[in-house]
Amino acid sequence: MGFVADLRAAWRERDSLLCVGLDPDPARFPAALAGRPQAILEFCCAIVDATADLACAFKPQIAYFAAQRAEDQLEALIDYIHVRHPGVPVILDAKRGDIGSTAGQYAEEAFARYRADAVTVNPYMGRDSVEPYLAWDGKGVILLCRTSNPGGADLQGLDVGGEKLYERLARLVATQWNGGGNCALVVGATFPAEIARVRALVGDMPLLVPGIGAQGGDVAATVAAGQTTDGLGLALNSSRAILYAGADEDFAAAARRAALTTRDAINACRAARAG
Amino acid sequence: MGFVADLRAAWRERDSLLCVGLDPDPARFPAALAGRPQAILEFCCAIVDATADLACAFKPQIAYFAAQRAEDQLEALIDYIHVRHPGVPVILDAKRGDIGSTAGQYAEEAFARYRADAVTVNPYMGRDSVEPYLAWDGKGVILLCRTSNPGGADLQGLDVGGEKLYERLARLVATQWNGGGNCALVVGATFPAEIARVRALVGDMPLLVPGIGAQGGDVAATVAAGQTTDGLGLALNSSRAILYAGADEDFAAAARRAALTTRDAINACRAARAG
Repeated sequence: MGFVADLRAAWRERDSLLCVGLDPDPARFPAALAGRPQAILEFCCAIVDATADLACAFKPQIAYFAAQRAEDQLEALIDYIHVRHPGVPVILDAKRGDIGSTAGQYAEEAFARYRADAVTVNPYMGRDSVEPYLAWDGKGVILLCRTSNPGGADLQGLDVGGEKLYERLARLVATQWNGGGNCALVVGATFPAEIARVRALVGDMPLLVPGIGAQGGDVAATVAAGQTTDGLGLALNSSRAILYAGADEDFAAAARRAALTTRDAINACRAARAG
Repeated sequence: MGFVADLRAAWRERDSLLCVGLDPDPARFPAALAGRPQAILEFCCAIVDATADLACAFKPQIAYFAAQRAEDQLEALIDYIHVRHPGVPVILDAKRGDIGSTAGQYAEEAFARYRADAVTVNPYMGRDSVEPYLAWDGKGVILLCRTSNPGGADLQGLDVGGEKLYERLARLVATQWNGGGNCALVVGATFPAEIARVRALVGDMPLLVPGIGAQGGDVAATVAAGQTTDGLGLALNSSRAILYAGADEDFAAAARRAALTTRDAINACRAARAG
């Protein structure tokens, strides 16, 4: 087994393509958590418990922990998910990117220290900057391809010999970097036509799609563009729209309602439903 | 003042273009440090004290701290440099890259938590992924441009409408992103012709050049290609060749000798020497 197999199993068993992003911002926590020393961990664990049966993956964003000196809470959170919800893979959203020896340290951080099942990686430095992650058997390596922000086109949208840079990257990953079968790509929900283009280039490789929910991407267009013929192939991430669906003590219940609505909206658009 | 002004002052006052990279690997520490709870901090502070008068900057690489759960030692190290050696700017080598809200958290991590004077940033996600760092008045933002590893060419060397991707990035930074005057670029020492090309595009913007020392870049060719007309413009980084020049208890003295040799080798190649 490995990350991609685990993700496919989660899609089928949970009948969900929803990835719940964990971007904890203490300024938006309910008042009851204010001042508690483990507030970030408590908040995230409550969200996790409320949404785990609706999610195909959890995606903690490391910047939110690092800015708060809360690396220990991130370690505890990922342990908690593995122990309590073992069917749900954990994607560490870190977007690391560096050369061989340093990349090896970042891989150690993601896979040994935090015990993530997959990590997001920035491909700008090329293949040898990615290999230290690929060397971890079974771990997922999710490369940034076409990101959902307006500036994403500054470099990714440039024409490189008749194709866009993000298309070249998708081809490189599909044909050269994915020998171990645990690669995936990040493609933003705000550009369905580009999701379709990437899907055509990478076969059934999983696509992690941020930008539904708070960023305003169109779920129907995203699913139509990115799903594989079996109605799978996508992990559609929503963070803030779920985490901060409620601001009071019932925040976890509000998060569950938001996750359920989102999961069902996604499922309603799928061409096929795995049994 | 700000990072770029501080770096220029350090070049002149210390008559040095040498940036000392702090990539602490406990497996290579002298035996006397083995098992000590603050070994990383003790090792780095000894290197810092032994080389500060020879260096224009220090560049801790965060991956080496994160893989060891040693963020607290990184905080203490940067504080130590600021207090003991206030004329030497600290570049946090983190190569972060993410969108607006998350980039804001990474900027908070680098500039508020660690109090770095500058941070390295990956430009793959475009301008709006860089703006949250630029918003910190006086702080330096050092964009990856052409990196020194073999795979660097996979994307950076692609032709984009008659120029290479790294050239386009250099132009974007010089003409659009550097309004605050605190941008710099990373260009690897292994490609002097490309350093010259970047220098021609960016005026006197500082270039951070990894790859001299252990990575084998040619100092004379690098200086000739990258220096500005006043013999400045470059921060040439060496990490392992200095940190691990000695393996015994005299490691700091050995590091000083290696730093002195490297600084002098660089200075011997400079077209002009600031008084």
